Amino acid sequence: MKDLKPSRRAAVAPFMAMDVLRKAKKLEHSGRRIIHMELGEPGTRTPTLVRQAAERALGDGGVGYGEALGDVALRERIARHYAEHEGVDVSPDRIIVTTGSSGAFVMSFICGFDAGAKIGVFQPGYPAYANILEALGLSSVTIDLGEETGFAPTVELVEAAYRRERFSGLLLMSPANPTGVMIAPGELEQVCSFCDDAGILLISDEIYHRLEHIGRAETAARYSRNAIVINSFSKYYAMTGWRLGWIVAPPALTRPLERLQQSLAICAPALSQKAAIAAFDATDELEVIKAGYAKSRELLLTRLPRIGLPRFAPPDAAFYIYADIAHLTDDSVKFCEDVLEEAGVALTPGVDFDRARGSRTLRISYAGSPEDVAAGIERLGDWLSRSR
Amino acid sequence: MKDLKPSRRAAVAPFMAMDVLRKAKKLEHSGRRIIHMELGEPGTRTPTLVRQAAERALGDGGVGYGEALGDVALRERIARHYAEHEGVDVSPDRIIVTTGSSGAFVMSFICGFDAGAKIGVFQPGYPAYANILEALGLSSVTIDLGEETGFAPTVELVEAAYRRERFSGLLLMSPANPTGVMIAPGELEQVCSFCDDAGILLISDEIYHRLEHIGRAETAARYSRNAIVINSFSKYYAMTGWRLGWIVAPPALTRPLERLQQSLAICAPALSQKAAIAAFDATDELEVIKAGYAKSRELLLTRLPRIGLPRFAPPDAAFYIYADIAHLTDDSVKFCEDVLEEAGVALTPGVDFDRARGSRTLRISYAGSPEDVAAGIERLGDWLSRSR
Repeated sequence: MKDLKPSRRAAVAPFMAMDVLRKAKKLEHSGRRIIHMELGEPGTRTPTLVRQAAERALGDGGVGYGEALGDVALRERIARHYAEHEGVDVSPDRIIVTTGSSGAFVMSFICGFDAGAKIGVFQPGYPAYANILEALGLSSVTIDLGEETGFAPTVELVEAAYRRERFSGLLLMSPANPTGVMIAPGELEQVCSFCDDAGILLISDEIYHRLEHIGRAETAARYSRNAIVINSFSKYYAMTGWRLGWIVAPPALTRPLERLQQSLAICAPALSQKAAIAAFDATDELEVIKAGYAKSRELLLTRLPRIGLPRFAPPDAAFYIYADIAHLTDDSVKFCEDVLEEAGVALTPGVDFDRARGSRTLRISYAGSPEDVAAGIERLGDWLSRSR
Repeated sequence: MKDLKPSRRAAVAPFMAMDVLRKAKKLEHSGRRIIHMELGEPGTRTPTLVRQAAERALGDGGVGYGEALGDVALRERIARHYAEHEGVDVSPDRIIVTTGSSGAFVMSFICGFDAGAKIGVFQPGYPAYANILEALGLSSVTIDLGEETGFAPTVELVEAAYRRERFSGLLLMSPANPTGVMIAPGELEQVCSFCDDAGILLISDEIYHRLEHIGRAETAARYSRNAIVINSFSKYYAMTGWRLGWIVAPPALTRPLERLQQSLAICAPALSQKAAIAAFDATDELEVIKAGYAKSRELLLTRLPRIGLPRFAPPDAAFYIYADIAHLTDDSVKFCEDVLEEAGVALTPGVDFDRARGSRTLRISYAGSPEDVAAGIERLGDWLSRSR
């Protein structure tokens, strides 16, 4: 018998956030009370209207296969959302309902790029991008973001990176994980134009839309019909475990994406689709949840400098603060382990988001309840003052 | 602006069954009554116990992200199922809950094979295999099944194919779609040994297990710890739209598969996981559903020869009959279109399952209600006698 080995391309990096979660759960099993600030997961129940829609669908009984592109009613509702919320006219024909944004990335990368293609990816950024690209035989061209632009992507950064190394796709996330930073609207328009002119397929990850605390995020669909726009019900709509997202596809890619979905997924989860249509009517409840994030954010902005973490990216949106800990450590993994074990607060080391510079940063998620966030920052402050 | 084009690897074939479904729905919208015999979808409601479990989980409110490997309770329940139903000892550590068997295939192919690898695939077979392989930069080595072996795979066929062209993986499906044929237990054991000895990664698709009408399907997990076993809640458990399946992984691949799941999917749908655990207790209800399939199968076995379709693979399991129509046409696509339009019965042309020989075959699904199946075969008989 020969040795069974995984493929080379299966050697993707683990998600540190998930590994931190596992360690945190282990401590909890041993009786410790852990405060979770490691996950980008709304610490709230699914909105009432969404749960009620799911209950109705269950009562109707049929949770069968759906069409590969998604339920027509949901696709029409998403299109209406673009008209009402973004002021952009998007035909339901261009909407493809996916298994979370995760499913949307896998399909979009396969549909957009042949093996060997290079894709521009901003850093710090969502770690799964590079992992999915790697698993699909694609490679990342890293574009570093830093304090010079307030961690915001700009067309200048894109052009400079493209001059150094041509890429056939560009992944843009605004508001961004882990920084909470948004691209300026004028810059977004220019990035769209640049990509259109250069024939670069722009993939715009907009899963943190509607979670702006300052300013307003714009959709790439406003500026280009050639961009793949990806969104999700997980963040603002607080439906993480339902695994539902969507794509606004360029017309030329709709049918290829449909065929890929048929083979790669058959269809997105049917009950989730029937529930999610109600999420667009749950604004009252969702804005209460968002107000909780805003409260936690205010607390962190006040408290972080006082406990010795004065430097972080401007957290204009989402529910993250990406903080500099270079004055405390150059090993963020060890640092987060110590904080977890000694202070009982779970945080994500920056290496998840920036393989190069992340050993001196960490991400604080304030997606949990304001009470937990307050308790977490208190514990972290005590620990920092003790360990000085 | 350059032209936006999909990648070459996105040029996968469409699912004919899904395209037939779309045409059928169009006819239904125009007021026609169509009988659906094109989809492998149980024509039944989700089992009561499963719906009740989902309702309880909804009441509890939290439908959040779960662990990448799946809920521990569900993984333990699946492991218990192997002990109780298959008499095979499988550790919960080896179970990975996936987004349908679709998600399991994508992850397994990436984890098992680097781009360029060749995978043995039986024909006729499930069309998504070749499509997913193609999208992931892998290629199929076709192994033709025919009347000589009653459409059953044998170790002799595998060895002969391997002598012609070495492959690093083998995809085996038993009971099979579209034929309903099973591999003989002795042959399965030998195929497992051959793959173990040759270092071929065996991927055993067992999603039609528990739907045997004659004989009994065995799991590859009985004969090899190196095989990837894939199963699903869609077929016997009648949970198609819930998008839930599982992998029994070789120990060496568990952690790579976990990392891939973190990045490619985060986790399988959470509500589906909480509901599916009840599926193993719903045997009474599920056996009633299965008795309906058995009744439909008996009817078809009697009626098909009388309406002029006497040749088909031995339908020992699942809910399909793969029939020879060479005496009627050499264009199964046109044939199925005519039957749909003129008789109002949706069938799947054989080209979905066998690119070479499928122009002279079709697949009849009897997963619908026995009444529908009876009405469908009646209509088909009338149409055949009229068109002679």
